[in-house]
Amino acid sequence: MHRVRFRDPAGSVRQGTWSDDGIEFGDRVYDPADVDVLPPTDPSKIVCVGLNYADHAEEEGMDVPDRPLLFLKPPNTVSGHGDTVTLPAGKDTIEHEVELGIVVGEQCRNVDEADAMDVVAGFTCANDVSNRDDQYVEQNWVRGKAFDNSCPLGPVVADPADVPEDASVELRVNGEMRQSSSIAEFIFSVPEIVAEITQYITLEPGDVVLTGTPAGVGPLDDGDRVEVEVEGVGVLEHDVERLD
Amino acid sequence: MHRVRFRDPAGSVRQGTWSDDGIEFGDRVYDPADVDVLPPTDPSKIVCVGLNYADHAEEEGMDVPDRPLLFLKPPNTVSGHGDTVTLPAGKDTIEHEVELGIVVGEQCRNVDEADAMDVVAGFTCANDVSNRDDQYVEQNWVRGKAFDNSCPLGPVVADPADVPEDASVELRVNGEMRQSSSIAEFIFSVPEIVAEITQYITLEPGDVVLTGTPAGVGPLDDGDRVEVEVEGVGVLEHDVERLD
Repeated sequence: MHRVRFRDPAGSVRQGTWSDDGIEFGDRVYDPADVDVLPPTDPSKIVCVGLNYADHAEEEGMDVPDRPLLFLKPPNTVSGHGDTVTLPAGKDTIEHEVELGIVVGEQCRNVDEADAMDVVAGFTCANDVSNRDDQYVEQNWVRGKAFDNSCPLGPVVADPADVPEDASVELRVNGEMRQSSSIAEFIFSVPEIVAEITQYITLEPGDVVLTGTPAGVGPLDDGDRVEVEVEGVGVLEHDVERLD
Repeated sequence: MHRVRFRDPAGSVRQGTWSDDGIEFGDRVYDPADVDVLPPTDPSKIVCVGLNYADHAEEEGMDVPDRPLLFLKPPNTVSGHGDTVTLPAGKDTIEHEVELGIVVGEQCRNVDEADAMDVVAGFTCANDVSNRDDQYVEQNWVRGKAFDNSCPLGPVVADPADVPEDASVELRVNGEMRQSSSIAEFIFSVPEIVAEITQYITLEPGDVVLTGTPAGVGPLDDGDRVEVEVEGVGVLEHDVERLD
């Protein structure tokens, strides 16, 4: 099942299901073109893993870490399907990073790996938009990773059963393939990541955990059209505007 | 004026004022001992500045930065006056850091320094509890700074006019003075910090900005009683429990 948050034509925010028939809520079925698709969740925080694919660590000239490298994106970073991501002014290099997003289903702390899937509501597509000008010169990646709307999410939350263990992850810019890999390449698995984070941090329903990006990261610029695809979830589309 | 959030004896959450007479809401005045004082705000994020006092940068062996060093504490870090801060298990060195907390009054982005005080609702006391075991070995200070209840805040939000420009900041553990300085020692001022953060990040009403700690940081351990005092705000008290 694919769950979607949307504003209906009357302006009400609804949580429906998205199938080939359209978006369904109650006894109504909407054409997706007739509603505003919203970010599929309203997280209190987004906890991110860096360097979770060996080929991306290599392209960044970084060693593969011995435990997940963590960083944070606060709620101001959330953006959605069909939205325009604004890039901060005056920066040379702002790049895309396709990621599988884990959506948390219940409040949890100190989760064992064996139980981790019990707290996962589903998966979504994410683009961890990254401002390299600042990221590469700051201790904590705040200017680099936590700027407004730097985390497009969506279009849906797919049940875990819909997403194969070797699901492909792809990102295209203006139709050109930039990143193409599979979550089978993860260094740290979804249960390992959830167990590690919840040793320190309570996750809340709706929180998102990003799982890292494969090789192929590259620049975004004004007017670009981005497609982020995770097999079993769908395609998250957004465009890009560079602020003056 | 000193604003306080509390649960009244009937269990309702109220926003009152705290004076020498007690805690007032509506036409009632409560003895502070009869209510549960809550964290004075419910932030969507806490944006923190590191190394904002030269003497603390020196004790950490770090250079004074040429722009504010930023890091993040998500909502899971919030704790309040009278609460027990739990320290993560298995860590050797967890330290206190007294800080002046800025409480944001309105949604804002790209705030000029000259206008920054317009978006400040007031000031509070904060303890940026820090897990050095992990902080010193990770790129982003997540395990080090973002663990549960690592950000006691309170007891009130004081109007900016109540807090002098050279307000003292002090922290005592079991009655012993550990940190004692003044916000006159800031490297970056409140307006400079607000202007810098909002170049990248939209702040929301209730969000908190921490302004760095002076020299004297030191270890916390099971059973410690901590008092965090900012002149013009009051004294935030909490105790500490080390988890097994």
